[in-house]
Amino acid sequence: PILRKPIEVQIGIKMDQIAGVNQKEENFDVVASLQMQWKDPELAFSPDTCQCAFELLTVGEASKLAIEKGIAWPSFNLHNQQGNRWSQNELVLILPDGTATYFERFSTTLQAPDFDFTDFPFDTQEFFIHIQAVFPEEFFVYADLEGFSGIGDYLGEEEWSVTEFDTSVTSQESGSRFSFRFEAQRQFNYYIMRIFVPLLLIISVAWITFFLKNYEKRVDVTAANLLLFIAFNFTIGDELPRLGYMTFLDVILMTTFLISVLVLALNVYLKRLEVGGRDELVQKIDSYVIWAYPLAYAVTFVLVKVLFTRA
Amino acid sequence: PILRKPIEVQIGIKMDQIAGVNQKEENFDVVASLQMQWKDPELAFSPDTCQCAFELLTVGEASKLAIEKGIAWPSFNLHNQQGNRWSQNELVLILPDGTATYFERFSTTLQAPDFDFTDFPFDTQEFFIHIQAVFPEEFFVYADLEGFSGIGDYLGEEEWSVTEFDTSVTSQESGSRFSFRFEAQRQFNYYIMRIFVPLLLIISVAWITFFLKNYEKRVDVTAANLLLFIAFNFTIGDELPRLGYMTFLDVILMTTFLISVLVLALNVYLKRLEVGGRDELVQKIDSYVIWAYPLAYAVTFVLVKVLFTRA
Amino acid sequence: PILRKPIEVQIGIKMDQIAGVNQKEENFDVVASLQMQWKDPELAFSPDTCQCAFELLTVGEASKLAIEKGIAWPSFNLHNQQGNRWSQNELVLILPDGTATYFERFSTTLQAPDFDFTDFPFDTQEFFIHIQAVFPEEFFVYADLEGFSGIGDYLGEEEWSVTEFDTSVTSQESGSRFSFRFEAQRQFNYYIMRIFVPLLLIISVAWITFFLKNYEKRVDVTAANLLLFIAFNFTIGDELPRLGYMTFLDVILMTTFLISVLVLALNVYLKRLEVGGRDELVQKIDSYVIWAYPLAYAVTFVLVKVLFTRA
Amino acid sequence: PILRKPIEVQIGIKMDQIAGVNQKEENFDVVASLQMQWKDPELAFSPDTCQCAFELLTVGEASKLAIEKGIAWPSFNLHNQQGNRWSQNELVLILPDGTATYFERFSTTLQAPDFDFTDFPFDTQEFFIHIQAVFPEEFFVYADLEGFSGIGDYLGEEEWSVTEFDTSVTSQESGSRFSFRFEAQRQFNYYIMRIFVPLLLIISVAWITFFLKNYEKRVDVTAANLLLFIAFNFTIGDELPRLGYMTFLDVILMTTFLISVLVLALNVYLKRLEVGGRDELVQKIDSYVIWAYPLAYAVTFVLVKVLFTRA
Amino acid sequence: PILRKPIEVQIGIKMDQIAGVNQKEENFDVVASLQMQWKDPELAFSPDTCQCAFELLTVGEASKLAIEKGIAWPSFNLHNQQGNRWSQNELVLILPDGTATYFERFSTTLQAPDFDFTDFPFDTQEFFIHIQAVFPEEFFVYADLEGFSGIGDYLGEEEWSVTEFDTSVTSQESGSRFSFRFEAQRQFNYYIMRIFVPLLLIISVAWITFFLKNYEKRVDVTAANLLLFIAFNFTIGDELPRLGYMTFLDVILMTTFLISVLVLALNVYLKRLEVGGRDELVQKIDSYVIWAYPLAYAVTFVLVKVLFTRA
Repeated sequence: PILRKPIEVQIGIKMDQIAGVNQKEENFDVVASLQMQWKDPELAFSPDTCQCAFELLTVGEASKLAIEKGIAWPSFNLHNQQGNRWSQNELVLILPDGTATYFERFSTTLQAPDFDFTDFPFDTQEFFIHIQAVFPEEFFVYADLEGFSGIGDYLGEEEWSVTEFDTSVTSQESGSRFSFRFEAQRQFNYYIMRIFVPLLLIISVAWITFFLKNYEKRVDVTAANLLLFIAFNFTIGDELPRLGYMTFLDVILMTTFLISVLVLALNVYLKRLEVGGRDELVQKIDSYVIWAYPLAYAVTFVLVKVLFTRA
Repeated sequence: PILRKPIEVQIGIKMDQIAGVNQKEENFDVVASLQMQWKDPELAFSPDTCQCAFELLTVGEASKLAIEKGIAWPSFNLHNQQGNRWSQNELVLILPDGTATYFERFSTTLQAPDFDFTDFPFDTQEFFIHIQAVFPEEFFVYADLEGFSGIGDYLGEEEWSVTEFDTSVTSQESGSRFSFRFEAQRQFNYYIMRIFVPLLLIISVAWITFFLKNYEKRVDVTAANLLLFIAFNFTIGDELPRLGYMTFLDVILMTTFLISVLVLALNVYLKRLEVGGRDELVQKIDSYVIWAYPLAYAVTFVLVKVLFTRA
Repeated sequence: PILRKPIEVQIGIKMDQIAGVNQKEENFDVVASLQMQWKDPELAFSPDTCQCAFELLTVGEASKLAIEKGIAWPSFNLHNQQGNRWSQNELVLILPDGTATYFERFSTTLQAPDFDFTDFPFDTQEFFIHIQAVFPEEFFVYADLEGFSGIGDYLGEEEWSVTEFDTSVTSQESGSRFSFRFEAQRQFNYYIMRIFVPLLLIISVAWITFFLKNYEKRVDVTAANLLLFIAFNFTIGDELPRLGYMTFLDVILMTTFLISVLVLALNVYLKRLEVGGRDELVQKIDSYVIWAYPLAYAVTFVLVKVLFTRA
Repeated sequence: PILRKPIEVQIGIKMDQIAGVNQKEENFDVVASLQMQWKDPELAFSPDTCQCAFELLTVGEASKLAIEKGIAWPSFNLHNQQGNRWSQNELVLILPDGTATYFERFSTTLQAPDFDFTDFPFDTQEFFIHIQAVFPEEFFVYADLEGFSGIGDYLGEEEWSVTEFDTSVTSQESGSRFSFRFEAQRQFNYYIMRIFVPLLLIISVAWITFFLKNYEKRVDVTAANLLLFIAFNFTIGDELPRLGYMTFLDVILMTTFLISVLVLALNVYLKRLEVGGRDELVQKIDSYVIWAYPLAYAVTFVLVKVLFTRA
Repeated sequence: PILRKPIEVQIGIKMDQIAGVNQKEENFDVVASLQMQWKDPELAFSPDTCQCAFELLTVGEASKLAIEKGIAWPSFNLHNQQGNRWSQNELVLILPDGTATYFERFSTTLQAPDFDFTDFPFDTQEFFIHIQAVFPEEFFVYADLEGFSGIGDYLGEEEWSVTEFDTSVTSQESGSRFSFRFEAQRQFNYYIMRIFVPLLLIISVAWITFFLKNYEKRVDVTAANLLLFIAFNFTIGDELPRLGYMTFLDVILMTTFLISVLVLALNVYLKRLEVGGRDELVQKIDSYVIWAYPLAYAVTFVLVKVLFTRA
């Protein structure tokens, strides 16, 4: 058998469901169908002996058959699988000419280590299903099973919408690898509703109360807002894994922190001036402050957005 | 066998329990009984050889029997299943004339990708159990097993009440599919008690304090309420998956946001007028405001309700 | 075999542990021992052939034996089981006269759809373990295995104390059913400590501050309390499934809502009177209010308690 | 075989890991090795027939061997096991003289129903691993496998430190039982840091602000503290199962509740006196109050500690 | 066989994924490939008999083969495994000369009892994968399979970055042990963003408001901050297991507690002096206080950092 030419195994994957995307654990749950097709003359049989047009085996029986015949079986693993793989149908169909078709419908958790949260929550991510051959390429070489791979109509994922997919075959040290790749874009409506709208409301309300010209109250309101921003900071921290870098949203929050502290310090200064009786100077400074406040936020947001989009 | 006519497989599902509806993950847990009945002459046997009126096999033994006889077995999968299916009884009973009955009682998680939360929390949803044949329709064609399908008396689900169910058989590219469909209506009492009543209370209390004619206090109360509404916003966000669209409740909340900001701005303006000594104008405006406040909420609610019911 | 009389299968259940009661999902986890005993002449054997006084089989081997002999096996399922059943010992002991004893120790999750939370948290609930025969009563009829059923000494459940249990056998359409029923009473100390005592404290403290005769402060205190009651409302909502009806505790909370709003409105009125200079009238009204406040709560509590106990 | 003398089965357990102690569910997760050793002449074989010094079997093969030989096998269950037991090595080694050694390394969840939280968080608890024989003592009698039982060096449990362990064999109605018992003491540093230090800080800060001689502020501070204590009450309630009795910590909290309400009422009284112009009396009372406040807490704590230690 | 020399088993581990590090439960989830290679003359076979260049067996078949041949099989367990091990490929390849290669790809949870949180969150931790032989060293001795062990390119862990790894073989009482060790350093950016920045902001804001020279307000602000620090204390407590010792972060928090209480007491004193009319003294003290406040925090932080780094 060592002299046999490598057998070409054609593979296709139909992804039916994305049962969940866990961005914190950096994995996702899929339900998919896998089909492998190859021709091994050693598996050929005469239809007369069994009075049948094909042989239908379970995986266990097929593997026993391979052992009996002393041939290698195209064993594989899901390289980025985590935990168990729950399979519903694991069938092997062998035709008299030795053409074998392996079918499996599985539900499993797959690692998604390529998550890059820099643009969060306006990010697009890549996901993979890697089929890795256990035997080296002297035995089996993978190829694409044309027309099989695809994406189902009811993925059942609300936050991510799949924008494209493709398949590829690569040579790994340990053997051939078939990769099903898809790209998904985050539907960021949730973050608009739960993070950006509240942030905007809090800033607006603070700004409106500034028109009361009560500098001590401004200090209190700004300090309270800072606490709210800190609370948002925690909420966002809970959405993501513990990253070693800052996301778009982190930068936005950090600048709201900075602006808040500056505004607070300025208003303490204004209050002291007022107490010191320098009302005119206070009025003059304040006429700028009241417009600088919303402007500072707007400029920050635009600036950060541009910087992050360039990166 | 390739020339054999397709075998009709009659299927029925009895749903005994809805162990849970997870609207965030868009799936539900069921315990159900599945029965399949078909007649394959190849399975016929003479009762004399075994001295018995029927053969009772486990699934493993039945599948071995099929392999020995070189015939296809009506393998299926639950198309919208997620994870594992825990089965309690997987029995095959074969009568001498080749009539086979397959019985399975299972507990599993099924995808419910048809969730449409637009009317949340006054929504009605569709749920499915899809039995998908593994072999194409040249081999097996599904049909309804009359009188078997049904819904148990103790579903054990408090939030959803099942209003109707039906079954259907469709032709899919990969083979026959039997679908058990049911519709369930949300018992929205929970959302009345935990969302609408608190919202109403908060708005009413704010309105009552308005009668104190303290404009600065009004600003504080309205700002505090806005924070409460933001907190409600988070609570509701946790109930649902991260949607790319707005629900009825989202729209209600967004308008309470808007009304709050307007009321706040107006009261800042009133306070400034008061400080400026224009008490008469303040009184006049206020006599409208105090009634416009509850009215704005009532109009909003009715308007949104009508708009959503029309959609 | 179709002419054979139905075989009587005696069943008993010993419940050793209640590993948990999940009232929100309406299920409970048990560890229990199940024993079934029946006599089937077809299982009889001559002790000489095997040189032994009994045969000890695993379930798999016993089921194979039944298939070989062409007889039905008393297969069952746990009708209200959810998910998997983890079994520790599944043994069949057969005596020469055909008396078979099946023993299984299992750990599983069982549905408890009979939860009625009307009296929550002063409720008593019913729980069941249903053993359902797979074969109709022409084959097997269930009966009680006297002296076996019971409840262990270390159930390990703190919130619920089992007050009684019994067993019964009923005829279901699909076959015989053996039901192990027990009643458990909630130890409501937890709810006293975490809900009622805090409620009482909050109300008392509000009442004490009323003696300061500061009507504006009263308004603030009552509004703050209302928010606390709303928070309690959420806490209680998290304890239970999303019910379509109101519990005792819900009604109590609803009336605290009502009383709070009334007290708040009254104090806004008193403040306006005071501002209007009608101090005497304020004093008079207040002398009633200060005693009506605690009384209103007391009356409400007693009334609701009586009404619910009657229902 | 019925006439054979009971076989002595020697058992030992080596507990390697405490993967977790779940005091709320009253169970704990262990990884342990179990060894059983017994001599059954029926298992003896001649080393010549197999050309080997021993037979090494998996559990399945060993049980088949027992069935073939018509002898009972020392089946057991873990009496307080919950859910599944994940086993890594289940091997049986049989020597020519019939000496059998069973080895199993398992990971499982065990019930710990003996939790007594009266002294919480200064409590010491007992934990058990119960090996229960399935066959009555006519067949197998358990004994201690000397020198095997023990506790590993890296239990990996931070909150509990094991202080002692022992083993014992008892006769149960259904058969012999081997019990591995250990005692563990809670490392209460966590509760000091998260409960007692914050409580002390809150009380101290309240006391310090009392020196401002502002009676109305005292009322506010005490009311706010009461809410904090209620929040602590919830936090503690989440740590433990829903008990039917009060723990040490519960009693401490209840008395802080009581003291707070008394202090609050007293300060309302002082404020009323002050408003009534009786400053001198207020001063006099207050000179006691300011020292009675910390004292009341100290006395309470000592008293409760003494009472609970006596019980 | 007892006289046979111990067989050398070469082992290598390739860690492909760190699916998660659970520092609270002190374990971690890995996906790894394990390869074992050894030569047992008893396994040698003649390639002519099977017409093949090698034998490929599943683990079950290989273990049966060993039993038939009466030889020991190099059984092992993962000594620090918790729960189940999900294996994808468990293959044995035997060459005619008796060289056997065992391959397994597994996904499991492993105990990490060596966590030392003293330097948290600036800590580096050690993790192990322990392969423990079931048979003593008379049978099998472990050695390193050179060139196999390694760490994958996509570990998928954001919080920890692996800095080094090595392997070693040790003699345990029960048999040979192969240990794969790696060191990982915490990426503490998360804790900077969520803990240190908020702490710094809160302290800065408090300090800025001190410039308002309002001593009563200072008391309120410091008391509120203390509550925030207590909340942080809870947040940090939730990140870690319930330790019996204090971490770097605990010490930092404890000193912020202490400083807050001191500052609060001092400002109460200043207020009393002010009320007593001693404004000059107040001014003098305050000119020191306002700089001592930030200094106290800075000194504390540096001191604790130095002390902990020395330890």
